[in-house]
This record gives sequence, C-alpha cells and structure tokens, in this order.
Amino acid sequence: MSLVVQKYGGSSVATAERIKRVAERIVATRKAGHDVVVVVSAMGDTTDELMDLAMQVSPVPPARELDMLLTSGERISNSLVAMAISALGAEARSFTGSQAGVLTTSAHGRARIIDVTPGRIREALDQGSIALVAGFQGVSQDTKDVTTLGRGGSDTTAVALAAALNADVCEIYTDVDGVYTADPRIVPDAAKLDTITYEEMLEMAASGAKVLMLRCVEYARRYNVPVHVRSSYSDKKGTLVTGNMEDLTVEQALITGVAHDRGEAKVTVVAVPDHPGVAAKIFRTIADAEIDIDMVVQNVSIADQGKTDITFTLPKDEGHRAVAALEAKRSEIGFSNVIYNDHVGKVSLVGAGMRSHPGVTATFCEALAEAGVNIDIITTSEIRISVLVRDTELDIAVRALHKAFDLGSDEEAVIYAGTGR
Amino acid sequence: MSLVVQKYGGSSVATAERIKRVAERIVATRKAGHDVVVVVSAMGDTTDELMDLAMQVSPVPPARELDMLLTSGERISNSLVAMAISALGAEARSFTGSQAGVLTTSAHGRARIIDVTPGRIREALDQGSIALVAGFQGVSQDTKDVTTLGRGGSDTTAVALAAALNADVCEIYTDVDGVYTADPRIVPDAAKLDTITYEEMLEMAASGAKVLMLRCVEYARRYNVPVHVRSSYSDKKGTLVTGNMEDLTVEQALITGVAHDRGEAKVTVVAVPDHPGVAAKIFRTIADAEIDIDMVVQNVSIADQGKTDITFTLPKDEGHRAVAALEAKRSEIGFSNVIYNDHVGKVSLVGAGMRSHPGVTATFCEALAEAGVNIDIITTSEIRISVLVRDTELDIAVRALHKAFDLGSDEEAVIYAGTGR
Repeated sequence: MSLVVQKYGGSSVATAERIKRVAERIVATRKAGHDVVVVVSAMGDTTDELMDLAMQVSPVPPARELDMLLTSGERISNSLVAMAISALGAEARSFTGSQAGVLTTSAHGRARIIDVTPGRIREALDQGSIALVAGFQGVSQDTKDVTTLGRGGSDTTAVALAAALNADVCEIYTDVDGVYTADPRIVPDAAKLDTITYEEMLEMAASGAKVLMLRCVEYARRYNVPVHVRSSYSDKKGTLVTGNMEDLTVEQALITGVAHDRGEAKVTVVAVPDHPGVAAKIFRTIADAEIDIDMVVQNVSIADQGKTDITFTLPKDEGHRAVAALEAKRSEIGFSNVIYNDHVGKVSLVGAGMRSHPGVTATFCEALAEAGVNIDIITTSEIRISVLVRDTELDIAVRALHKAFDLGSDEEAVIYAGTGR
Repeated sequence: MSLVVQKYGGSSVATAERIKRVAERIVATRKAGHDVVVVVSAMGDTTDELMDLAMQVSPVPPARELDMLLTSGERISNSLVAMAISALGAEARSFTGSQAGVLTTSAHGRARIIDVTPGRIREALDQGSIALVAGFQGVSQDTKDVTTLGRGGSDTTAVALAAALNADVCEIYTDVDGVYTADPRIVPDAAKLDTITYEEMLEMAASGAKVLMLRCVEYARRYNVPVHVRSSYSDKKGTLVTGNMEDLTVEQALITGVAHDRGEAKVTVVAVPDHPGVAAKIFRTIADAEIDIDMVVQNVSIADQGKTDITFTLPKDEGHRAVAALEAKRSEIGFSNVIYNDHVGKVSLVGAGMRSHPGVTATFCEALAEAGVNIDIITTSEIRISVLVRDTELDIAVRALHKAFDLGSDEEAVIYAGTGR
C-alpha cells in the first residue's frame, strides 16, 4: 500500500458534475489500495468572484481580510468533494490548511510554508478515511491568522503535504496531459515528455511554462517528492518530474523543450554614468518597490562616452511602477531617460544535455536567424538559453527552435480550455 | 466607554452597498467611544446556494462536511464587512467562530455552545480594533471540527459573546423596528414594544414570533444580557429585552402581545387503550424520531369505552415522519388509527400581567367566539394562553385578540422584506 497525494485545479471542480467525476477518480485510487490525500483548488471562477466583491467594498482591501475571504473558496470546493466521495460510499474528511497543519509566515497573500505538521491528516488516513486539504492556504505561525500562499499555492500545498507525509507520489491533475516540449497551441507537433528532472522543470517553469509553478517545483526538488503531472480528463500517464541531472545517462535527450513567456516587459535606463555603484542604485530602487527582475544586460553606449545603458526585463504588470520608481531617482542616479517596451516576448531552450554540447548556442542563433527573428537580449544558464524577441515574432521563434532541435512527435497533443490556480 | 455587541442578519449584508452601510453604522458606534464586536450572518441567499450545491453532489451530505461548507458563508460576509470598515479608516479584524473561542458540542448542524473563550477578541479590542466574528459557527471541543449552531445561530453567537465579554448590550439588527404586539402584516395597528422581559420574549418566541429565536433569548436570560432588537435601516430605538417578571411593577401592561405560528400540524392518535404507560409509548416513539412536540391534549373517547384519543402538535415538516413512526408501532401500542391535519394555526396571548388577572382566559375565549373562530385545542402557561384554530381563521383570531386586549397603537409599523438567519 502506498500513499498518494492528488491535487485538482479549479477547472477540474468547476461544476457539480466535474466534482462527481473527480470523486470517482479519488475513490478508484482508494479502492486500488492506496492511502489518498487530496488537495483541491477553489471552484472555477470563485476566486475572481470573491475578488470582485472585495473590490466593491474597498479599493485597497487589507491583506489579512483578503486572505480570510479568499480561503473560503477552497473550503467550499473541498467540502463538496468530500460529500461527493461519501455519496460513493467511501469515507472522506475535509480539513482547512490550518487544521492540516500548514504553518506559514505571516506575509498575507504571499505566505511561505515554514512547516507542515499533518497529525490530523495522518490520523484520518489511519482510520481508513480519505483526507481532503484546502489548498492555497495555511495559518501564520506567529499570529495564528489565516494566510494564503499566492500563485501556484495549491500545487505547493500538495507537494508540501506529500513531503511531510513521505508520500510515494504527488499527482498534479491539470487540463493538459503533461509537460510538453513546447506549447501545443503554438507547435502542433509538440511532444509530451515522459520524465523530466527537477532542474529542467525549474528552468521550464522559470521560462514561462505554466503547467507547474516555480515554487512548487523548488519544494519538490528540495524534498525529493516525485511529481506526476497528468490530465484530470483521462487515465493516460502524464509527465513524471523526478531525479537530478547528475543521474542522467549520456543517452538522455540533449534538449527538453522550448518555453516562452509573454508576460515580460523591457526597461532600458539610458546614459547611466559608467562608474562603480550606479547599477547597484538602479537595482536597489527596483528591489525597494518589491519588483522581481529577470534578464539583465549592460552595454557600453557608443554615442555617449563615459556612459552606459542598462536593460532589464520584469513582469509587464509591474512595468509602470518600475518606471515611476526610477524616474523619481533620476537626478540622484544621473541617467538621462528610461525607455519602456512591453511589445517583447521571451523564448527559452531548456535541456540538461546542453551542458556538454557547445554547439547548442550556435544552432539556436542560426535557427532564429533563418526564421528572420531578431535577438534583442540573450542570457544563458548552465542548462538554458533565453532570448528576448519582438512579441509578434515569438510564435515563429518557438516553432523554429522546436524544429531545429528536432523535438517534434507524431502523437497529437490534447489541449483543454480553462486554467487552475 | 462601554462594550457593544452588534449582530447583523443576512439581508442587512446581502449586497456590497448594504455592507458599506452596515460598516458606516459600526464605525459610527466606534467613533461614539464604544468598543464594538460585530457578528454577521452569511450574505442574503448564500446559505441556500451552498445547500443547493451540496444537494447536487450528494443526496445526503455528511453533517460534518455540510458544516465545513456552510460556515464559508459567514467567513465571506465577515471579511467583506471588515474590508468596508477599513475603507472608512477604522481598524477591523475578522475572526472565525473557532478563532473567537466559540466552543461547542460536536452535534454537527445543531451544535450547542459549551463555552466562549474570547481571548483573541479581547486582545483585538484592547488594540483599538473593531472585532468581527463569524456567526452561526464554532469548533467542537472534542473533535476540533468546525460546527454550526443551527437556526438562530448567529443571534446566539452574538448573545454568547456579549455574555463572555460582559458587554453592556447586545444589539440585534434586523429588518423590523423591534418586537411588536402582533405581526404588523396581519394587524395594521400593532404597536412596537419599548421593553419586554426575558420570560415574555421566551413565550413570544416559543409561540411563533420570529424576531428572535428561542435559544438566543434563553441564553440572554441565563446570563442576563440586555438585548436590543432594532432595525438596520433606521436609527430609531427598538425593543429592549431585559429584566425579569419579578421586577415588574403593578403598572406594567397586562398583556405583551399576540403571537402566531403557521408551522405546526396536528396529530391525533385514535382509540388508544386507556391504561398507564400507553401515552408514554406514543411520546417515546416520537422522541426516538428526534421530533419535538408542542401542545398535548388527551380526551376521553365517548364512542369507545376504555379507549382515549391523544392529540399533539409538531412542526409541519416533521409530520409525515411522525405518522410513519407511529404507524410502525400501531399493533404494539394498540391504537386504531392516526389522523393527520396540517390545516391548523396556533395563536397565543403572552403577558406577565395575566398571572394575577383571572379574567384573561374568559376575555380570550369570548373574543374568539365573537369573531366566529372555533377553538380546537387550548393550552396555557403561567403567562401565556395558546389555542389551535383552523388555518383559514388564524388571521381573524390574531386581530380579534389584539383588539380585545386593546394592544393597538397609532404609530405606523415599518415592515421590510427579506429574512435573516
């Protein structure tokens, strides 16, 4: 008998009918002889609807109260799934994040998990019950207030529980069949990956692959939790995220896949005085505004001697705040102006095999050149190459790279509508 | 500075606009220098909608999960009210029943409050914050599971908190102006009462007056909590429930009011063997089915010697269950048949003054006789007379009694649509 943690996203439980289908799958897993812990996101658009209500009563709702409000969404979906399981004759008990022992920091809206003490979950399992845990939420270790984990929170709850319970596998049910070599909506012959290492999955997630959130993969890697990403609409095997690069054999595929991200914008700070400490001032300004930056490049400005241009990318929806923060410090830092451009897209090639294959960068650049795509910025890690291109050329770039590295498959990809949380 | 507990029903917080209005009233109370604790019911039809969802996934949802589901309604309304208060510049913190220390039995769906340990509420007040508590819910002392208190639960939460915090008053905001001498929809000149004793309010509530639930009044009486029933749509003084009959002066009004109840049905068990223990068997059968009975009468049956008829009333929606339970024991108990009639209504006259005025019963019966209303069953307590009449004659009976005891007023009653929980 093994212990399985299953996580279902919001679209998988959007209606009473879908909840019943999810319940059937859970009961089937239990009947196959496994202990089952289930994490469910809020139903369909519940979170958005609650957010709307909040905005109607307050322009800037306090984060503590927003957490109290939003966590009711998971409470509703979890108790409904528990009822549907009971209707099938199995035992089920639902628990809030707090009851399940999910202890977090007190940073409302973006709390981090500090510890998981799943005594009540273990007890429910020992009594033969299926345990349901409300995802995305926990309780602050200091203030005992209800907290939420922010984006990707339910996936993280599932992986954290799997780690604390020493589960055999954490199954993430989603509306796609697994992790693909590229987004099948852009690349029709994208191939489903059977396995992917934590490191590669981290790079894919960081590069815009939406199937798993970065922090959830980080957690899984740290605690060595095997994560099985699969479809809630079929019984097909999905993608197993497990293992480290060090364990890979030489026969391993050179390249894992192509990821893309439309969510970034580019900021160029023009004619920055070229002496020590100035770049630090710029990035401190952005950090003080609590904005994460991604790619960074610095070029010598030819037109203006003793000056340099600094370019970086950041999430589009933080763009205007970043520009405003910089403008406020223009005279102190001493640059001439800021150029903001959100008509950009990022395309990344990820693969553990590229470490030992120096020709990858060359092939990468040739493929884009042949497709007529101009490279704006280029950054690399040990197992990833990312470039910033014009947003209108992003799809072309993804297809060109997918083809150049021969990642295609004959099997048709399955795409569903809807998103989870 | 005094401590005020305010309770707002579901219709008072049914929309974002109404939530903002409630927030204004709460902040005004705080600005007047009082400490304020607020209990809010779920928004409008939320509870019904959640119930609908439950029924869609399970024909008989487990009570524990139903409680987990339904309590999300109060969580939503309370956090929204907290946000609306913050938007007005005041400090507010919302708490679940569990966080507020509402400890209950583990009888899901109809838990009783065992104790209230409002340490976190006291702390919030001491820090200058307004404290909001989700009504209708608590946490089981034994199992640590989330419980609900059943009908009238939010009122009871408010009174229990007022008792535990030693509050100066518990204000119950509702959609009527207070407690009336009769339902103004039946009796247009019904008068609003300025004060009413706990005992009278208990009898009125037990007799069908819907403005306060019985258990809430019982709680208030036991802990001597003054309850102010008032309208959430005006600033007018409502009705103060306080004081005991013993403290009443002789000038006190003879009669408090006329209450009515359309929710009961009548069951007659015909030709019951007239020897000891048989009536007990009948009422044990009903009790085992967990059905509460109200009025009971036993008549000697003239037609059939050695036999008697036993008649009692009970909630209409339990009627068929009661009849089925009795029929199953027909041969054991030895009666001939059961007659069920739900075309009945109960009208009650309540007043502490009637104890020392023997003529009240005579006037009561004369008034009904003059109005042509036939009395089916009559029962009395020290301060109440109740009769069962035909349902079509109920309104006539209420008006006749109200007039006979001269309870009318010139001031117009204010009636709003909508119901709370």
